[in-house]
Amino acid sequence: MTHSAENRPARVGIVGGGQLARMSAIAAAGIGVDVGVLAESPEDPATTVAAHVLICPPDSIDALRSLAEWADVVTFDHEHVPPTMLEELQAEGHRIHPTPAAKIYAQDKAEQRFHLGGTLGLPVPRHAEVATTEEVESFAASAGWPVMLKDTRGGYDGHGVAVVADAREAVTVLERAESLGVAVLAEELVPIEQELAVVLARTPSGRYVVYPVVETVQRGGICHEMLAPARLPADLQEQARALAISIAEGIDATGILAVELFLARGELLINELALRPHNSGHFTLGGCVASQFENHIRAVLDWPLGDTSLLAPGVACVNVLGEGSIDPRGQLPHALEVPGAMVQLYGKAPRAGRKLGHVTVGAGQIDDALQRARRAAALLSSGVAA
Amino acid sequence: MTHSAENRPARVGIVGGGQLARMSAIAAAGIGVDVGVLAESPEDPATTVAAHVLICPPDSIDALRSLAEWADVVTFDHEHVPPTMLEELQAEGHRIHPTPAAKIYAQDKAEQRFHLGGTLGLPVPRHAEVATTEEVESFAASAGWPVMLKDTRGGYDGHGVAVVADAREAVTVLERAESLGVAVLAEELVPIEQELAVVLARTPSGRYVVYPVVETVQRGGICHEMLAPARLPADLQEQARALAISIAEGIDATGILAVELFLARGELLINELALRPHNSGHFTLGGCVASQFENHIRAVLDWPLGDTSLLAPGVACVNVLGEGSIDPRGQLPHALEVPGAMVQLYGKAPRAGRKLGHVTVGAGQIDDALQRARRAAALLSSGVAA
Repeated sequence: MTHSAENRPARVGIVGGGQLARMSAIAAAGIGVDVGVLAESPEDPATTVAAHVLICPPDSIDALRSLAEWADVVTFDHEHVPPTMLEELQAEGHRIHPTPAAKIYAQDKAEQRFHLGGTLGLPVPRHAEVATTEEVESFAASAGWPVMLKDTRGGYDGHGVAVVADAREAVTVLERAESLGVAVLAEELVPIEQELAVVLARTPSGRYVVYPVVETVQRGGICHEMLAPARLPADLQEQARALAISIAEGIDATGILAVELFLARGELLINELALRPHNSGHFTLGGCVASQFENHIRAVLDWPLGDTSLLAPGVACVNVLGEGSIDPRGQLPHALEVPGAMVQLYGKAPRAGRKLGHVTVGAGQIDDALQRARRAAALLSSGVAA
Repeated sequence: MTHSAENRPARVGIVGGGQLARMSAIAAAGIGVDVGVLAESPEDPATTVAAHVLICPPDSIDALRSLAEWADVVTFDHEHVPPTMLEELQAEGHRIHPTPAAKIYAQDKAEQRFHLGGTLGLPVPRHAEVATTEEVESFAASAGWPVMLKDTRGGYDGHGVAVVADAREAVTVLERAESLGVAVLAEELVPIEQELAVVLARTPSGRYVVYPVVETVQRGGICHEMLAPARLPADLQEQARALAISIAEGIDATGILAVELFLARGELLINELALRPHNSGHFTLGGCVASQFENHIRAVLDWPLGDTSLLAPGVACVNVLGEGSIDPRGQLPHALEVPGAMVQLYGKAPRAGRKLGHVTVGAGQIDDALQRARRAAALLSSGVAA
């Protein structure tokens, strides 16, 4: 258990100053924990709410070291820190959660597939690392066309993922990846029936709490809507939770672990992992007793974890995505008219497709919650009700 | 309705940098509103979470003006700003909520009693302004001994209030008040059966929302425990809410209004008013859909107000008061073991009797919630479970 020095708050250093760091810093302030952020720009969302701010690129070892020296423990709001730097800091004795050894499974899709599917024997889509069109064709010969081609590193929100119909289309993707120096993973195109996620928090001591399984609706590769609990039979809910726990223990995850899952052919398949607060867990803020942000802070400090119970029978959460130059901050008074709408805005300048906030609503009926969350989110995004 | 300038967050300036400003700033950050605070010290609780910080005494007109120029609207976390300065700022065209005209009823106990009891005809304890022992004796002749003597201005948390058994004891109190230049109000000693509070939020446009009536337990003149909903018959709950609404409309309150009430001889009597977020409303943070802090921000901006529904059938909230040099921040991991405990720490250095934080628990049964909140608060205050 991490104890702070006498007479000062515990300190958590977050690499990254985006909305995940912002909401984590707000949650930390609630329980009297100070957050320091390593942000790329003073305009980043977390800078106005953090107790300590460093402005520097996240691949500066000096800045990372400075954050680590200030903090009791270092954690992240993104996947973009070179693993070797984290190993260097860890070797110097700094406490880092998730550890570089666990974080790699969120940073590298090939490592994730081979470890989870191979070593741990967990259900993942059929996959193979490919460098040539021949290798893509050979994979397609067994998995069938079309084939998904994914950059093994650096992708997010649908970037770095392509669906190719034949070998000719694969050429462009492979050439682009080669020019970036990124390996490529071929995967079967899974016939998705439903997308789900399980968010859990786990401490370095191995204690964990699991949030209710959430149903996610993607739009253009971006998590857009969340419904908790997921509309899913009880046995599959239990399987999903058990799968997430197996992964957490199998990779020794610390802090928040979000496991994105597909339901396909009636069975669960692992899609992506995130070892940090994740969009699919935004419903927990206002929708559960303790949010994923508070539990991330508590988990990386190796403190007891908070109650993951839902505060209403059904909780819906809808992202506010930028639409042109409309600023949700100007629409806020209209959105707040929607009964029960809990609005989070991230303090970002508007830009089309950018995640600018989200709205959560809890209600007796999930459909009612969803309808209201959609209405408020639409008012914020576009000024017009959905 | 206050609209922010294009492409920037709405800005609320708070005079005072204590825990009320801190929790308001945290709530504001959630909805993407920037808070600026006028704090007396860089160590004040709100400074680490506010987007904009001014360090200056709250009776500096230049500092107040600077805050007002930065902000779209100015509000308060205490009662200590000289009313004349607020009138001056208002005359200059700055938006101030609550207005100086309403705020005076929280700043001056005599004004409050005469306006509420006299002009508005609402139930207040028997009272009279007194300057001499003869006047105290004359009041006691009808109201009986002992008599409460209250400084009309500057009191808080039981300071500035004395109970005197006879004229001789009154001498000391009157002399002290005279030396401070403060008028004194004599009041009957009410036979209190129960202490209650109603917290509501009201906008400059006159819209309002009311939180469930809360039962408060005082310790040494300080609000110590809150139980919501109050254990009170439905008709009295309704009377309490109606009374608070009458006051809000009668004094044109804006922002949060907290009305502290006594139940005595089976009837409700008005005790104190606060025109700002108040300790008796701390249960709303985590205990209701929208907290008093968020609704204060929304109200002073003249925005739609948030849902005041309880998130559990019973919500209990217990203050964490300093006990000697024990720092609750060091006890946090123990307190977080208590199931469902929602801890707020204010980032203040420990000192005996100082309000350092609070714990809220929601449960199916209020007794269960109270027991858990007490246990966590005791662990934080003293390191020992209650």
